[in-house]
Amino acid sequence: MDKKTVTIKDIARMLGISKSTVSRALSGRSDIHPETKQKIMALANDLHYEPNALAINLKQQKTNTIGVIVPETVNRFFARAVGGIQKVSDMAGVNVMICQSNESYISEKNNLHSLVSSRVDGLIVSISSETDRTDHFKPIFERGIPIVFFDRICEDVHASQVYTDNYEIAFEGTEHLITRGYRRIAFVAGPQHLFNSRNRLLGYLDALKKHNLPVKESYIIHSHYGSGKVEEYTRYLMQLPQRPDAVFAINDYAAIEMMHIMKKNGLKIPDDVAFLGFNNEDMCRFVEPPLSSIDHPAHDMGAAAAEILINQMRHPDLKPESRIIKSKLVIRESSGARLVL
Amino acid sequence: MDKKTVTIKDIARMLGISKSTVSRALSGRSDIHPETKQKIMALANDLHYEPNALAINLKQQKTNTIGVIVPETVNRFFARAVGGIQKVSDMAGVNVMICQSNESYISEKNNLHSLVSSRVDGLIVSISSETDRTDHFKPIFERGIPIVFFDRICEDVHASQVYTDNYEIAFEGTEHLITRGYRRIAFVAGPQHLFNSRNRLLGYLDALKKHNLPVKESYIIHSHYGSGKVEEYTRYLMQLPQRPDAVFAINDYAAIEMMHIMKKNGLKIPDDVAFLGFNNEDMCRFVEPPLSSIDHPAHDMGAAAAEILINQMRHPDLKPESRIIKSKLVIRESSGARLVL
Repeated sequence: MDKKTVTIKDIARMLGISKSTVSRALSGRSDIHPETKQKIMALANDLHYEPNALAINLKQQKTNTIGVIVPETVNRFFARAVGGIQKVSDMAGVNVMICQSNESYISEKNNLHSLVSSRVDGLIVSISSETDRTDHFKPIFERGIPIVFFDRICEDVHASQVYTDNYEIAFEGTEHLITRGYRRIAFVAGPQHLFNSRNRLLGYLDALKKHNLPVKESYIIHSHYGSGKVEEYTRYLMQLPQRPDAVFAINDYAAIEMMHIMKKNGLKIPDDVAFLGFNNEDMCRFVEPPLSSIDHPAHDMGAAAAEILINQMRHPDLKPESRIIKSKLVIRESSGARLVL
Repeated sequence: MDKKTVTIKDIARMLGISKSTVSRALSGRSDIHPETKQKIMALANDLHYEPNALAINLKQQKTNTIGVIVPETVNRFFARAVGGIQKVSDMAGVNVMICQSNESYISEKNNLHSLVSSRVDGLIVSISSETDRTDHFKPIFERGIPIVFFDRICEDVHASQVYTDNYEIAFEGTEHLITRGYRRIAFVAGPQHLFNSRNRLLGYLDALKKHNLPVKESYIIHSHYGSGKVEEYTRYLMQLPQRPDAVFAINDYAAIEMMHIMKKNGLKIPDDVAFLGFNNEDMCRFVEPPLSSIDHPAHDMGAAAAEILINQMRHPDLKPESRIIKSKLVIRESSGARLVL
C-alpha cells in the first residue's frame, strides 16, 4: 500500500465489490450482507481509512469547529482565556482551532480569512491592539457566521460580547490607592481605540475627580501591550519634578518590571511608590513586596464566550448576547497603607 | 440577499449568464469578454464572494495549513515556541492552526484526528506529559503527512525532531552548582517517559558521579509539569534530615515558588539554598534574588520545526531531519558562590 489517503474506491477494488456497497457499509446502513460488511470494516480499519472530512463537510457545510483569534498566547491572559474556551468546547464535543494575530491588524484579517475558508461554524475573537476598524468582520456577519467577541471587543458591531467591568474596577482600584493615602497616582493606559482600555482610563479619571484630585496628563502613560518600553516610561516617571507616589499599571508584567527598576533606584515599595497591577498572575505572590492586582477572570471569560457561541451555533435564531464577568481587587503589600502622608 | 454563503450559481443567476462563465472569470481565465468579466468581478466583490476553500481543497487535497499540537500555551515555553512557528509560517504564507492537548493523551489523539480530518498539510507536535506511546501517530506516517516533533519528541518514530541538548545542559547546570560549593543538590525531574526529562536527569546524575558526589534518591523529585504540588514537595525537601543546599528545578515557575516558600521559612537564598531554574523566563530577573536559569530556546525551536516542516511539505522526498538547538546557562544571584562551605 502506498502512502496516499485510503479511499472508498481502494477498499472496493481490493475486495472486488462495488464502491456503493463499501460506502453503505461504512456509513452504517443495514441493507448489506453482514459478512460483507464485516470484511469491509476490517479492511477499512487495517488501512486506517478515515472518511474525507472535507467531502463530508462540503456536503453538510458543517465542521463542528470553533475558530479562535487572540492577539498572542505569550500574554497569559489570552492563554488562560483559551483554556476556558477549550474546556467548554471539549465538554460540548466541539473542536477548537486557534490563530494568533500577534497584535497585527493584517494578521488578524488573514486569520479571519483562513478560518472562514476552513468553514468554521463560529468564531471567538479578541481584537489586536492595532485594530481600529471593523470592516473585516462585515463579511462574517453577512454570511451569518456567529461571532463572540471577548475582552477586547468591537462595541460598534451587533454581535455577542463578553467583557469585564473595566470602568468599575479601575475606579475601585484607583479609589483603593487614594484611601490608602496616595495622591499622585500614575496610570499606565492601553491603546485608547480599545473599548476596555478606554473604560479603564475613564474609571481612573472619575475616581480622581470624586476625591478632588487633579488630573495630570504627565501621569498618564499611553502604552501598547507588549511594547517593550517599560524601562523608558519608568525612567520618565521617576524623573518628573513631582514623582508619582503610586502606579496603576496596564498589566502585572509592566507593574513588576517597573517595581524592579524603581527598587534598583533606591525607592521603597510601597512607602515611596505603591503599585497596583492588572490580571493577578501567579507571579504577583512571589515578587517583593507581593503585588496588588485586579483578578481579571480570563478563564471565565473564555468559558462564557464558548458557551454563548456554541449556543448560537446550535440555535441560529438566538439574538446576540452581552455578558459581563466581574473582576476583583486583590490587595497585597505593594499597595499597603502609606506611612508618611 | 439572505445570509447564506454566496456561490458561483448565485452570481450566474443574478447576471443571467452561465455558471461556467462565472467560474472562468473568477479563476482568472482570459477566454471571456472583458466587460462580462468586469461585471462578474464587481458583483462577486459586492456580495463578498469567497471561493469555497473546502471544494478547492478537496480537489487539490491541499490546505496550505500547518496543524500544531502543544500541551498548553499557559506554559510560556510553548507560547514562545508557537510564536516561532507562526513567524516562519507567516513569511512562507502558510496558515497555522493550533490545538492544545492540555497534557492529556486523549485530547492529543482528538486534536490529531481533528487536524487530520481538516486535511492539514503537515503537523508540528510536542507531546503531552501523559503520552507514553506513539500508536496514535502511526496512521499519520502511513498517509505520508509530514510531522516534526519538537522539545517533547517521540524518539522511537522515524520523523523529524527538533530538540535541545538536555543532557549536556543539565550536566553543565549541575556542575555549575557543584563548583560554586553546593554538595547536596536536589533535582526536580519531569515525567521519565519523556525523552527530554530523562536526558536531563541523566545529565544531573553524571555530573554528580564525575565529582564523586553520592546520588540520593530522596533528593530527586518526580514531578509532572503543572501538577500544582510545588508547595508539597518543597516542604518535603525542607524537612529532610539533611536538607539540600541547592535545587535544580524543572522550570522557573517551580523554582520561583520553591524559593518563595523557603524564604518565608527563614532560609537565605543562596547562602542556605541555591536555586537554578529552567526556561529563563523574564520573571527570573525580577524575583529576589534574581534566579539563575537555563535559556531554553523556545522561539528558535518553534522556528526550526516550522522551517523543516514547510521544506518537507514542498519536497515530499526529503528524509526526516533531526536538529539540536543549544541551550545556555544564565547565572544570576540565586546560585552565587556559597559563603559557608
